[in-house]
Amino acid sequence: MLWPAMSPTLDFYFFIGSTYSHLSVWRAAALAHERGVELVWRPFSVRTLMREQQNPPFVGKPVKMRYMWRDVERRARRFGVPFAGEPPYPIDRDERANHLAMRAALDGWCPEFARAAYHEWFIERRDPGDEATLRAIIASTGHDPDAELTPARMAECIAAYQRQTDRARELGLFGSPTFVCGREIFWGDDRLEDALDWAVSAAH
Amino acid sequence: MLWPAMSPTLDFYFFIGSTYSHLSVWRAAALAHERGVELVWRPFSVRTLMREQQNPPFVGKPVKMRYMWRDVERRARRFGVPFAGEPPYPIDRDERANHLAMRAALDGWCPEFARAAYHEWFIERRDPGDEATLRAIIASTGHDPDAELTPARMAECIAAYQRQTDRARELGLFGSPTFVCGREIFWGDDRLEDALDWAVSAAH
Repeated sequence: MLWPAMSPTLDFYFFIGSTYSHLSVWRAAALAHERGVELVWRPFSVRTLMREQQNPPFVGKPVKMRYMWRDVERRARRFGVPFAGEPPYPIDRDERANHLAMRAALDGWCPEFARAAYHEWFIERRDPGDEATLRAIIASTGHDPDAELTPARMAECIAAYQRQTDRARELGLFGSPTFVCGREIFWGDDRLEDALDWAVSAAH
Repeated sequence: MLWPAMSPTLDFYFFIGSTYSHLSVWRAAALAHERGVELVWRPFSVRTLMREQQNPPFVGKPVKMRYMWRDVERRARRFGVPFAGEPPYPIDRDERANHLAMRAALDGWCPEFARAAYHEWFIERRDPGDEATLRAIIASTGHDPDAELTPARMAECIAAYQRQTDRARELGLFGSPTFVCGREIFWGDDRLEDALDWAVSAAH
């Protein structure tokens, strides 16, 4: 008996607030589509894991931080991703934009929400976690901010966000973006191509 | 009047003790040659800069460290670079192997020395900073350990190593490997291709 080949899938763990995730939010969907890989968008609190692991990437590290901005700028140019200079950083103190990304993931509009949030952050240079900006992002994706931000709906997506963060911890994640295929994890926008190759191989 | 085009060059800053530098020590020369780029091997004490910048990559970070070894293994396989499992880590406590790499850089045999040191470390799984291993590495490159390790010659290469570390600090380096073209720095083996592209563009 012949089994049908599995369709390749790749989990895209990301956090709105991660600078390199800007590149992946713009790049990952198109590259996955080209390779025939289904991309599953998974917001998680990398900030929680970084705090637990005492692994903040840039706080107190001005030399590395300066390099990061220059590198993001160069990589954005290389890939044709929009970049308008250093945006505000850090952002989304209460992780409200990330909670809404989880809401969007539960309801099937996460890619649109994430792109709109990164557009506000990197191009308009506004904190997507600010109430007015967050409402504008939700509205821009064709959804009703009042309906999405009710306490009951927020409680549901916050719980799902925490569960997804627990799953990320179990998988051994420590940074964003991270691409996951089975137990195999690929950290960084610069591992997107490796991760897609892995997903395609794993499915055959 | 027409000026002749400059020949592209790229500085390859590395530290024997950096795990990802294993990939670059094997990959960089061939890729640079293909692109017509002259590669200048520059040992430096990234450990000194990491200490100053409070930026140790893996100490006290077991989750990130576990990932790093798996990632190095996967990348080695991807590039056809030898890998024989996790080698001893950390190594070269007194930076003697790095001092000798500087000696070799001053005298034009740094690529051979670095490859022999990484072979001992990653394949034979010995600390290249241990006296017997260091002597074997020097001898394997066709040089005389007794002649290279005299106090006068060591003093000269240690001073050059410290000057090169000072230069790396001025350039804003914080990790190894780093590829440098003018004031432009590219951190990580995964930026080697970007750095070569930059070097070629800068020369035209």
